Amino acid sequence: MISTDNIRNGVNVDQLVGTIEAVQGNPELAKFEFRAKTDWIEGGHCRTSAKGFYGVCQEDETRQETFTMEADHPEVLLGKDKAPTPAEIVLHGLGSCLTGALMYHAAAHGIDIECMETKLEGNCDLHGFLGLDPNVRKGFEGINVTFKVKSDATEEQLLELAKFSPVYDIVTNPTPVSINFAK
Amino acid sequence: MISTDNIRNGVNVDQLVGTIEAVQGNPELAKFEFRAKTDWIEGGHCRTSAKGFYGVCQEDETRQETFTMEADHPEVLLGKDKAPTPAEIVLHGLGSCLTGALMYHAAAHGIDIECMETKLEGNCDLHGFLGLDPNVRKGFEGINVTFKVKSDATEEQLLELAKFSPVYDIVTNPTPVSINFAK
Repeated sequence: MISTDNIRNGVNVDQLVGTIEAVQGNPELAKFEFRAKTDWIEGGHCRTSAKGFYGVCQEDETRQETFTMEADHPEVLLGKDKAPTPAEIVLHGLGSCLTGALMYHAAAHGIDIECMETKLEGNCDLHGFLGLDPNVRKGFEGINVTFKVKSDATEEQLLELAKFSPVYDIVTNPTPVSINFAK
Repeated sequence: MISTDNIRNGVNVDQLVGTIEAVQGNPELAKFEFRAKTDWIEGGHCRTSAKGFYGVCQEDETRQETFTMEADHPEVLLGKDKAPTPAEIVLHGLGSCLTGALMYHAAAHGIDIECMETKLEGNCDLHGFLGLDPNVRKGFEGINVTFKVKSDATEEQLLELAKFSPVYDIVTNPTPVSINFAK
């Protein structure tokens, strides 16, 4: 029997179209909540775990694995260099989200992507983090992203598709963060 | 021989004070560039590597390991659930950065932290990512962070220290992202 799955860029286009139609029929299906728990180990070394999430009107029961991710700092930033820095983790989140968004939306538009790699650079000035100059921001002053994509689509088209990325939105626009203390 | 290292919360306070003094003496030391490279695997599955970075006026030569990090999506989001989502990766970056910032600045202020864990929740509505409603944002509508900290310091003090976090700044304030294509 021949498979009739409509796969483009590794994305199941039938399932993607089905998801869009389902959300159009019931807007509540589109609400997702992602969660993580970060445990402090020592200094700037942490371990985060992520498993449960909410989506399509229910708590997820399909994910089997609890994903763990670590963060640390190199020696020059007073760490033991056991894991990437939070700054590099943000670049990873941005790079993978831009890539995923481009692939999903390209698939929906019938655009084939042969291969893709993305370089990311984020610049910061420690005067901000160290509290030495209130006019210097603590985070990245800016992020440079360079796409290397093999596709028949134009760069303008690909850029437009990538910008559907949720993490691109989180980084480029203000996202409210509310911090509370557990009693 | 008794060690005279001044360690608080796992942070070498003498080295931290030395870093601050060095930066005050030569502002160029404070400029850092972090880098990552994201390779597309298939669909929304990527692998990012991070090793080299620039800081204290030179290319780093101390880091031995190339850190690799993956991202994927659960089945309900058309992935194979091989790794956390970019959304969860951002929560990891934020949780570990808030924790590290709190620890470093607490150490500098002579505040002991006995233990700390952080829960993070990020909410989003797929109408944004799917392009179904231009008024719905693509990223998180908001992130809720809950600290559980054992310390003699007040919650107000701890919150003030955590907000030195670079990733907190990146998420809550607009960070310019420039995207180009490699020739």
